[in-house]
Amino acid sequence: MDPSQVDVPPLKDLTIDNITDNVKLINSQCPNPRLKYILERIVQHVHDLARETRLSHEEWMTGLLFLTSVGQICTDVRQEFILLSDILGLSLLVDSIDHPKPPHSTEGTVLGPFHSHEAEAQANGALISHDPEGEPCLVVCDIKDTAGKPVDGVKIDIWETDSKGFYDVQYAGREGPDQRAVMHSDGDGVFWFKAIVPVPYPIPHDGPVGKLLTQLKRHCYRPSHMHFMFEKQGYDNLITYVQQKDMASRQVLTLLRRALYLRGDPYETSDAVFGVKESLLIDLGTVSSEQASKYGVKEGGKLISYNFVLVSEDESKRLREKNAMEAMKKLGRSMKLWNGLPVPDVD
Amino acid sequence: MDPSQVDVPPLKDLTIDNITDNVKLINSQCPNPRLKYILERIVQHVHDLARETRLSHEEWMTGLLFLTSVGQICTDVRQEFILLSDILGLSLLVDSIDHPKPPHSTEGTVLGPFHSHEAEAQANGALISHDPEGEPCLVVCDIKDTAGKPVDGVKIDIWETDSKGFYDVQYAGREGPDQRAVMHSDGDGVFWFKAIVPVPYPIPHDGPVGKLLTQLKRHCYRPSHMHFMFEKQGYDNLITYVQQKDMASRQVLTLLRRALYLRGDPYETSDAVFGVKESLLIDLGTVSSEQASKYGVKEGGKLISYNFVLVSEDESKRLREKNAMEAMKKLGRSMKLWNGLPVPDVD
Repeated sequence: MDPSQVDVPPLKDLTIDNITDNVKLINSQCPNPRLKYILERIVQHVHDLARETRLSHEEWMTGLLFLTSVGQICTDVRQEFILLSDILGLSLLVDSIDHPKPPHSTEGTVLGPFHSHEAEAQANGALISHDPEGEPCLVVCDIKDTAGKPVDGVKIDIWETDSKGFYDVQYAGREGPDQRAVMHSDGDGVFWFKAIVPVPYPIPHDGPVGKLLTQLKRHCYRPSHMHFMFEKQGYDNLITYVQQKDMASRQVLTLLRRALYLRGDPYETSDAVFGVKESLLIDLGTVSSEQASKYGVKEGGKLISYNFVLVSEDESKRLREKNAMEAMKKLGRSMKLWNGLPVPDVD
Repeated sequence: MDPSQVDVPPLKDLTIDNITDNVKLINSQCPNPRLKYILERIVQHVHDLARETRLSHEEWMTGLLFLTSVGQICTDVRQEFILLSDILGLSLLVDSIDHPKPPHSTEGTVLGPFHSHEAEAQANGALISHDPEGEPCLVVCDIKDTAGKPVDGVKIDIWETDSKGFYDVQYAGREGPDQRAVMHSDGDGVFWFKAIVPVPYPIPHDGPVGKLLTQLKRHCYRPSHMHFMFEKQGYDNLITYVQQKDMASRQVLTLLRRALYLRGDPYETSDAVFGVKESLLIDLGTVSSEQASKYGVKEGGKLISYNFVLVSEDESKRLREKNAMEAMKKLGRSMKLWNGLPVPDVD
């Protein structure tokens, strides 16, 4: 970075009124059009926030120290910035933008900070929870595409809490993964396993995000739910980065994530992270005598069943790009797509 | 935080179009009107940013991991979030909003991340830099109020880099503070000391902020300058929090900060943190024979002299509140002042 090689406009005597345009100008040397556009919008919004609130120096410093503490509490099994994004509704919003769902496909929801890569591959029928206090629950689901055709060979990552509302990674002295599994759908698109009935639980609230919720007089509970993450080539790809012990090294995952929520949960309409959708609510069923003998579980036990509908990569891409260009038209700015994402059209 | 005591609107099936209003609604239970207003604006801006950019899941995760790394590199002598705020122009903007200057008073500038609390109290005339490679420089300044009256007994915190462009706290093996002092203005409002001629230097660029500047093709240099921070009861109070080893414990400082910049510096018009103002530029002078004998330095040596004009707390408060209400009028929203800062007027 040789400063003499950089062509910058003269920047001096910047004021409340002209600083935003000048910062955008110096950032406009960025050769990546997408980063340039995102940074331009970040600068505009952060500056507008300060101007609209007449942000005081004390508040600014409080905010920076809050963000510092959010970063400092992060570990390889705790991502407090995802949690912050979750409770501000940003996570769900980004999922809605990036993974649009055509009618009759299964809607997306928040990933949450508790997915891990420790789950072991299990065959259909496996017992995935070993919590003796959990209420046993048979789970039988199938996966179809939007044309109604069963999808086989889908890799499914499943995770839920124990009966106390904690994920395995939240226990310091744990011996290995529990309440987690990786399975595959069979030739009929079916996958099934034995788990426990999900319970509501608080998101981690012993850190800065929990303190913020307290200040906002918000509770920190999520309604009872079970997580599912789907992966198969040709289906809507959700690329996510999962952090490792070294924050710089990142692992790329291709996946599609869903969750099912129990109807009637006390937090059904006040999920701390805004994840609940009517189409993802299920009524807890009862195992019939036929199912009991077929799946080797007790008759009258609890049952979760659901028909997932996955969107193909092509459908998702077409819909995402169509929605993007429609939204850009409303901004009144000439935009084009670059790697499938909007950037200003300066040609 | 008993969730059953919290009255929340039903939140379910949130979409790209209605999530922002719903998140604002659940946050509106916040009893502190100022935090409520700031959070409302943060939610609006963060959501608008995602919608305007059609932020992808991958970009969202890249952003969260960037913020995580900014938090994780912070220590008791390094504040990377201040640095991030500096290079986005936010620090200067907040200073301009919170510390408005009437005509003919000395303008403010960015504090930077290198102020420390280790400087020792020194008498007028002290030698504050012990770098044998620095070019000696006599500094003679005075402080007046806006009516032209000398202000005595002002506590002045002074800090600059060594001849290599590093502050003392940037050296791992340092023995104690250097290029720092705390002094007081005398009965004529004068303070003076022996230092070295400031040099340009790069802001710390071995962390995430440096990487961002590289991606933006921006250089990381600040023009040659010397920092001054003023503190006296009755004068414009800048409350800042200075972090300690324990991020939670914070020390409150009442201070006013300024910096003087050398005219003609190669980075005069491209300061990486936007701090330069015409009124803070000085020409490096030459010590006269009279000054040489008065201050006990060599004739013909380098000289910095400046007349600081401080604003009273009352003047600053009046101007800040007047500017705030004028800006609020332009927002077209009914606002009132609460502890001197704007909040929506819901009465």
